[in-house]
Amino acid sequence: MDDLLARARALDAADPLAAFRDRFVVADPELVYLDGNSLGRLPRSTATRLAAAVEQEWGGDLIRGWASWIELPRRVGDLVGTGLLGARPGEVLLADSTTVNLYKLAAAALAARPGRRVVLTDDDNFPTDQYVLQGLAGAHLRVVHTDLDAGVDPAAVAAALDGDVALVSLSHVAYRSGAVADLPGITALAHEAGALTLWDLSHSAGSVPVGLAEAGADLAVGCTYKYLNAGPGAPAYLYVRAGLADTLRQPVQGWFGQRDQFAMGGRYEPAAGIDRFGVGTPGVLGAYAVAEGAGLVAEAGVDRLRAKGMALTSYLVELADAWLTPLGFRLASPRDPARRGAHVSLHHPRAWQVCQALADRKVVGDYRTPDRLRLGPAPLYTRFADVHEGLSRLRDLVAAGGHESYPAGPARVT
Amino acid sequence: MDDLLARARALDAADPLAAFRDRFVVADPELVYLDGNSLGRLPRSTATRLAAAVEQEWGGDLIRGWASWIELPRRVGDLVGTGLLGARPGEVLLADSTTVNLYKLAAAALAARPGRRVVLTDDDNFPTDQYVLQGLAGAHLRVVHTDLDAGVDPAAVAAALDGDVALVSLSHVAYRSGAVADLPGITALAHEAGALTLWDLSHSAGSVPVGLAEAGADLAVGCTYKYLNAGPGAPAYLYVRAGLADTLRQPVQGWFGQRDQFAMGGRYEPAAGIDRFGVGTPGVLGAYAVAEGAGLVAEAGVDRLRAKGMALTSYLVELADAWLTPLGFRLASPRDPARRGAHVSLHHPRAWQVCQALADRKVVGDYRTPDRLRLGPAPLYTRFADVHEGLSRLRDLVAAGGHESYPAGPARVT
Repeated sequence: MDDLLARARALDAADPLAAFRDRFVVADPELVYLDGNSLGRLPRSTATRLAAAVEQEWGGDLIRGWASWIELPRRVGDLVGTGLLGARPGEVLLADSTTVNLYKLAAAALAARPGRRVVLTDDDNFPTDQYVLQGLAGAHLRVVHTDLDAGVDPAAVAAALDGDVALVSLSHVAYRSGAVADLPGITALAHEAGALTLWDLSHSAGSVPVGLAEAGADLAVGCTYKYLNAGPGAPAYLYVRAGLADTLRQPVQGWFGQRDQFAMGGRYEPAAGIDRFGVGTPGVLGAYAVAEGAGLVAEAGVDRLRAKGMALTSYLVELADAWLTPLGFRLASPRDPARRGAHVSLHHPRAWQVCQALADRKVVGDYRTPDRLRLGPAPLYTRFADVHEGLSRLRDLVAAGGHESYPAGPARVT
Repeated sequence: MDDLLARARALDAADPLAAFRDRFVVADPELVYLDGNSLGRLPRSTATRLAAAVEQEWGGDLIRGWASWIELPRRVGDLVGTGLLGARPGEVLLADSTTVNLYKLAAAALAARPGRRVVLTDDDNFPTDQYVLQGLAGAHLRVVHTDLDAGVDPAAVAAALDGDVALVSLSHVAYRSGAVADLPGITALAHEAGALTLWDLSHSAGSVPVGLAEAGADLAVGCTYKYLNAGPGAPAYLYVRAGLADTLRQPVQGWFGQRDQFAMGGRYEPAAGIDRFGVGTPGVLGAYAVAEGAGLVAEAGVDRLRAKGMALTSYLVELADAWLTPLGFRLASPRDPARRGAHVSLHHPRAWQVCQALADRKVVGDYRTPDRLRLGPAPLYTRFADVHEGLSRLRDLVAAGGHESYPAGPARVT
């Protein structure tokens, strides 16, 4: 056994979260899954909970099920908000998709700052975030440049802030590099300039502490199918700071955001607080899946997950330095573990081919444009030994040129 | 056995759709469920299909499941569109909620008619439809009056149409009365005036033929949890006439509406055709539930469901005439079965109390403002004998004054 493997086994033996792996379905023990940051694993309890919701609640209660289902968006929103995001009760609602929520909140923020039309974002923000902001009626986009490996620079944001900026919309953890943005610092900068903030927490929730209330963050959105393990296309959430919600109007006016919804009145009057950000009938099965998946994250504790996430990615970087740098890889994430989330990217000129070849060797990561292999050892169920095994296979693959026979990918390094 | 019961049994014995009842879970045989127009029953196959999707696809395939999941919104959209709506392949997409889809399509229609700012609707449109239109930036709402029992009057729509109208947005089947609007006639009127049409099919899809392509309808939306039996909060669908889609821009720009989505480019370019109306990550479990539920409807056939729906509601009206009119009830739906969908409403000055008391006698209908008891014998799984049993219990309840001890409801007849 090499020293690095011995280290992995020792780290696994000392891991206070080790038992959580058994709470998840591991259908193929040979598969090294380093993509929990794209789609989290299936919690064992979720299959049971969903079956009960389908058979007993839908099948048995029928329409009467709404007596309890109606509370799910708030109840599960609070579980996510207070358990994982550092929000207060009543500040988080389960609703729609991340993109729809971005739209609702960005439009509401713009309307709340009359006379200001600029929305500030960066050119490394997740594509759907950029698309939403580009389509926002009446908004003038101001896009700051971000180094793809280092993450958003607060000084660049500060330089771009002025009295025209209504909203600063950024990702908390960068989807490509994993770089952590300075959420409290940038929020404070935005507030000094009189702007609101809208954070996309999709890659941070469940992997790093978010601390929304402590930072005084105004608005946030995020998905639940990554570190929150709620399954493909599960409902997203949105956060609105207490006190702010009642001052905002969102553009997608629906009956699930209506005060006294079941009076079925003909004139829209927004509900008080976070409820006004609901729109249509919420997905019930998806909400239960979020409750199970996010519940496991809350049980493990974000601080313990953060500690393990830093240790796992540090171990991964150590292996990459030792094994992969000589093969043409280069770190595409911050080297300081405190400055990155729970995933790491590596440059390689044939990253697309490597990613495909690696999947055929049962190591699942992601390709990210233009030349990144992204590896996400989700801390809730990934072992240090998995990282060792995955990177061993990657090393052996590339050392033998096993990726070279794969067709060139959709993007190339120029 | 009374004659009416004998009739019910004979009608059930001759029902070509009778076997479909066994394809659904009937957890409590004593329960008379007359609310399939609010939440359809659970198909037996859905529990199995969802369990497989959870355990094998999510649990086993993990992120690799997207290779097939990505096609669900189009594939299941086509199943609904061609099987139930009279649409052509490629005209229907599963996405978001009905309300979010209304917003996207109404905004797109308004933008497609520059110089016209009026959106025409009626005061009996479903509340969420009215709320969406009220919140639509730049729209001037023009609201025609509709008799709550008779349904939308094409002459009133014609009188309100002029060169300022960009869009006519109506429900195909009225949620309260069940009245069927003249979709082809009103679509033709709108087109003569140069306006587009947006139909809400939530109460018609799966219960009456819709004939979108034949009518030349432009836009439509609908939910899947009523007659399509896809479960609480399952994803909605949207329809855009072929040829029109590429000329429209919708305001909620997301990565699932982006051309070449996984190139992850920074600039939004709408996908061709119906795909541009996608937004965020679609719900996978919900899509499978729609496939199962709508698949059963398609298998039964909309024409056969329409025939049975007319027969069931005619039988219900006959019982109401005989038993309930003497007790203070009055029909609140069109008397001509061709002019109503698959549900019937009855006026009663204490409709709220009656509805609550009836539920305690295991007959589930709905209260609808201001004084309606709404009964929806969904034709796919409701027997004539169920209608007889439900109306017998209703008659006996009210004849004995059993509802009088119930607290007054949220609305009263003035």
